[in-house]
Amino acid sequence: MPDAVLDDISHRRFNPLTGAWLLVSPHRTKRPWQGQKEAPSNSKLPDYDPKCFLCPGNKRAQGDSNPQYKNTFAFVNDYSAVKEEQQAYEPAAANEDDVASLLLQAQPATGRCYVLTFAANHATTLADMTTEEIVPVIQAWTRIYASHMSTSHPLKAQAARALEQIPVNPDAEVGKPKQQLRYMQIFENKGVTMGCSNPHPHCQVWTVSNLPEEPAKEIDQMSQYHKSHGRHLLGDYAKLEMEKEERVVWQNESFLIVCPWWAFWPFEVLVIAKRHVRALVDLTDDETVRFAEAIQEITRRYDNLFETSFPYSSGIHQAPLDCTEEEAETSWFHMHFYPPLLRSATVRKFQVGYELLAESQRDITPEQAAAKLRACGGELYRKSLQ
Amino acid sequence: MPDAVLDDISHRRFNPLTGAWLLVSPHRTKRPWQGQKEAPSNSKLPDYDPKCFLCPGNKRAQGDSNPQYKNTFAFVNDYSAVKEEQQAYEPAAANEDDVASLLLQAQPATGRCYVLTFAANHATTLADMTTEEIVPVIQAWTRIYASHMSTSHPLKAQAARALEQIPVNPDAEVGKPKQQLRYMQIFENKGVTMGCSNPHPHCQVWTVSNLPEEPAKEIDQMSQYHKSHGRHLLGDYAKLEMEKEERVVWQNESFLIVCPWWAFWPFEVLVIAKRHVRALVDLTDDETVRFAEAIQEITRRYDNLFETSFPYSSGIHQAPLDCTEEEAETSWFHMHFYPPLLRSATVRKFQVGYELLAESQRDITPEQAAAKLRACGGELYRKSLQ
Ligand SMILES: O=P(O)(O)O[C@H]1O[C@H](CO)[C@@H](O)[C@H](O)[C@H]1O
Ligand SMILES: O=P(O)(O)O[C@H]1O[C@H](CO)[C@@H](O)[C@H](O)[C@H]1O
Repeated sequence: MPDAVLDDISHRRFNPLTGAWLLVSPHRTKRPWQGQKEAPSNSKLPDYDPKCFLCPGNKRAQGDSNPQYKNTFAFVNDYSAVKEEQQAYEPAAANEDDVASLLLQAQPATGRCYVLTFAANHATTLADMTTEEIVPVIQAWTRIYASHMSTSHPLKAQAARALEQIPVNPDAEVGKPKQQLRYMQIFENKGVTMGCSNPHPHCQVWTVSNLPEEPAKEIDQMSQYHKSHGRHLLGDYAKLEMEKEERVVWQNESFLIVCPWWAFWPFEVLVIAKRHVRALVDLTDDETVRFAEAIQEITRRYDNLFETSFPYSSGIHQAPLDCTEEEAETSWFHMHFYPPLLRSATVRKFQVGYELLAESQRDITPEQAAAKLRACGGELYRKSLQ
Repeated sequence: MPDAVLDDISHRRFNPLTGAWLLVSPHRTKRPWQGQKEAPSNSKLPDYDPKCFLCPGNKRAQGDSNPQYKNTFAFVNDYSAVKEEQQAYEPAAANEDDVASLLLQAQPATGRCYVLTFAANHATTLADMTTEEIVPVIQAWTRIYASHMSTSHPLKAQAARALEQIPVNPDAEVGKPKQQLRYMQIFENKGVTMGCSNPHPHCQVWTVSNLPEEPAKEIDQMSQYHKSHGRHLLGDYAKLEMEKEERVVWQNESFLIVCPWWAFWPFEVLVIAKRHVRALVDLTDDETVRFAEAIQEITRRYDNLFETSFPYSSGIHQAPLDCTEEEAETSWFHMHFYPPLLRSATVRKFQVGYELLAESQRDITPEQAAAKLRACGGELYRKSLQ
């Protein structure tokens, strides 16, 4: 460990995926906390809730009824942030003589937003589910991604193979929007702390007409790295972390879980494909199982860490739905987990004043976080309580 | 209003200060909210709390005693995120043959963090204070900023004048760190929702050895605008918004309060100096009063909006402590307010899944927010309840 001194001093670390620095203050964990406490979520939920708009057979907010689905079920969000059809808007071209054209820039955004449940059981979470139960979730992600890819996509052969080989689940088929969209973001908000308004296990899938800021930054950074060094940023990074070991939480043949060097959230992790997987459609059947294992492993460890249903936002970054050969080749499949808890089930890290106005800041180091997450494998803590 | 259509459709807006786009989904406010509720902060606090570590005369966490101060009082944070002295760390130079030097980059960070109270009264807030009571706060900010500027600073004459003219408050004098620091961030976290652990009215002042990400982005964007157009970005913007009026909340001779075109938080505002003020030390005595008026006005309107003590993080952006002539000339004094509440005292906007993984997203438009903030001037709602 050449950098043991960083365990003790304030320093900045560089995030090569976004190109931004963040402040790390390891000694700050000593300060007493008298602020807001989160509500720990240990309440026992029923397996079926007649009022839940995601449970099988129930009515949704706008009147549709859910089928008696078995594992995953997908539908268009009743309150989508983007829609397929709306009034046209033609942005004004930038014009030196018109300050408004420089400073009040807008562009239309269309798309389609889905909700996708992970299981029929209202009371379960990914941490409670087995690897075998998580596989259908990844298959649903893969089918929804594959069916939304452009017909000229560099990975269209892989998409065709995936659609052929993955069993059809009619409850998770959503058709295709009329217009080709540019990007798909699969993400989960888990827990009330992360703005989730329904505990029924589910994620969201937003497909949009533009490449959003975060994936655009990552693709740009990865592509610059590839041009400068002739290798892939995340490929190099996964190899390096496997050698160093100090930030590794867990791994199997296909996936590596690390607390990244540049992690912002206290127990943030990155799940990285070990080989050059560009998108879900590149995963072999075996890799799908390995990915399910990785998701099972990290969500269970999270819950074990503070013996609570651990809140987080997570999401997949992969090749855009409509992209060039270069973008597809630059993409390296990975999943981010951003959990807010810092010290216990009730004390979180706030991303506020200094963070919003100046720069991201964290207290414990990623190495300390990785050590804690390595130490809490084993059975889900709730199992032995039941 | 040429852009009335934007009131109704999903679109992206461009933030020229950071160079990033965000997603605006005006129709989304219609969705019902069943998620987390914030605790409204209407509890009546005592004017003096013997357990508060900021009240006059009390003992602090690490044993020091506060003086019987009258208005503002400043001290070095007992749990600073950066310190003046620490073990040395020499970052390795980037080296093509050593992947770690490319992907595990760190640099040391030093500095000094202060806490600055706004008033002796434990139960007050900026919204409760009069303009005359806020003036000493701005004077304390100005003196602390002036006394930390480098001796070669392009605004050193202005600093000398400010230090001479602003009355000395011994309770707010903090001396000067041994080493010259690069940047000072003055910010306030208000309310438990914003990670504030003590309701006693106060802000923080972090002085750091580097230029943090957010001000660096802004200086860069403002400097590019200046080079391309020969005018100041925020000067042009303030003029444009005064003409358009639809995003203006309030103004006086010296300051303009707007819900910026690119606002991310539901009721985010930007307080902009109308003339080219580069830093606090540029303010005339009259402008200091005008700035105090602006702060009073926005914090009171915030509280009136949902009849609650409105949580927010706010902070000042101005010329760095140690900077070139060009950086100083590019800087344009402004203050950001980032408040999380969306629909009521208990329903906030969450910056979670899509926002963290893909792109910032907002529901109501800045124009709708400005209209609401324009409509809630007048006396502080609490006054008539007392
Ligand atoms: O310094 P405080 O008030 O204890 O802490 C608060 O402000 C800091 C600066 O924005 C944040 O890093 C902390 O997460 C927050 O709780
Ligand atoms: O779509 P939901 O679950 O109602 O809403 C949640 O996730 C969205 C996407 O991250 C956020 O914009 C909302 O603030 C959050 O409450």
